[in-house]
Amino acid sequence: MRISELSRRSGVSTATIKYYLREGLLPPGRPTAATQAEYGESHVQRLRLIRALIGVRGLTVSAAKDVLDAISEVETDTHELLGLVFGVWPVAGAKDEDPDPDNSEVSALLAEMGWKVTEHNPARHVITQTLHTLRSLGMDYDWQSLIPYAQLAGKTAALDLDQLQDPADPIEKAERAVLLTFLLEPALLALRRLAQEAESTVRYGG
Amino acid sequence: MRISELSRRSGVSTATIKYYLREGLLPPGRPTAATQAEYGESHVQRLRLIRALIGVRGLTVSAAKDVLDAISEVETDTHELLGLVFGVWPVAGAKDEDPDPDNSEVSALLAEMGWKVTEHNPARHVITQTLHTLRSLGMDYDWQSLIPYAQLAGKTAALDLDQLQDPADPIEKAERAVLLTFLLEPALLALRRLAQEAESTVRYGG
Repeated sequence: MRISELSRRSGVSTATIKYYLREGLLPPGRPTAATQAEYGESHVQRLRLIRALIGVRGLTVSAAKDVLDAISEVETDTHELLGLVFGVWPVAGAKDEDPDPDNSEVSALLAEMGWKVTEHNPARHVITQTLHTLRSLGMDYDWQSLIPYAQLAGKTAALDLDQLQDPADPIEKAERAVLLTFLLEPALLALRRLAQEAESTVRYGG
Repeated sequence: MRISELSRRSGVSTATIKYYLREGLLPPGRPTAATQAEYGESHVQRLRLIRALIGVRGLTVSAAKDVLDAISEVETDTHELLGLVFGVWPVAGAKDEDPDPDNSEVSALLAEMGWKVTEHNPARHVITQTLHTLRSLGMDYDWQSLIPYAQLAGKTAALDLDQLQDPADPIEKAERAVLLTFLLEPALLALRRLAQEAESTVRYGG
């Protein structure tokens, strides 16, 4: 297909497509004339993934290129692929943060749950910070308070992973992982809010 | 206690306390001299709730005053109290949005779950928007896809409500509801990320 058709199919403007071609995020099409090239389905799919990484996950163009390059390298290893997309392993070019020595509570929680998680997973710091903030506001909260929530999060993650089984193609799997992980986040919090009101109605009357 | 002691106990500066007094967020203390007043435990508690509403939930001072006034009015009705804190009922001064006619998918989901939720709950729109976005990116997703997630959100909400049983005092209950609902949000998403990595390790090898 021509670039105009690629733009229509992917919902990405031709100017942006040309920019991604220049930056090497999108492989070149097959040249058909001095100023024309032919693009295929793999370009449509790749553009959707780029849009997911940049538009949904909020990566910079250069960080998205690092992820795409890494995906091409590890595409036979689903676990490494998902790790890259979830941002678990440090992406080339990203700066290495010092491990926070205060993450010991998270380590205790992970051990209790039997979860194997790399040291680099940035979610560790979020848990640590939340516990600090809750305690600074006078709440009696530690890692053990989070165990019942972690059990439910484990079931949520299993639902997520179930939906990544179908696409055999690594690029499609990566795209689905980005969309499911990031786009569902506000919806999961919204479901909790709806459920809180429903539960409050059941317990305290409407 | 004097205002300096109140500041130390609550972690709120005396200048800010005086501002809250002028704006009517904090009731005046008992006057002991022309320029001095005596404050009690109820002031410490009220300041913690103000800090939760403004600092955590991100309300403006005037919106926080509306919520505090409303809490005083309904403090015998736990359900209404929690509704106010969760932002379910429109707060005086907040503008009424037109109900989104496209929320029919959310209504179907709520009916399926047996959840009673007011029309005003802003979480409805978040679900609608997420479904639209996922479909616009080519994913085959509708309200039924969310049912297993909603079931887990129901269990999460039950955990939340369990932790609001203890405080009999309505101000304390409201404070706890704000902290639990808003501060736990990033931690719940972080738990999902950790669980995703752990689940990926189990399924696809480490």
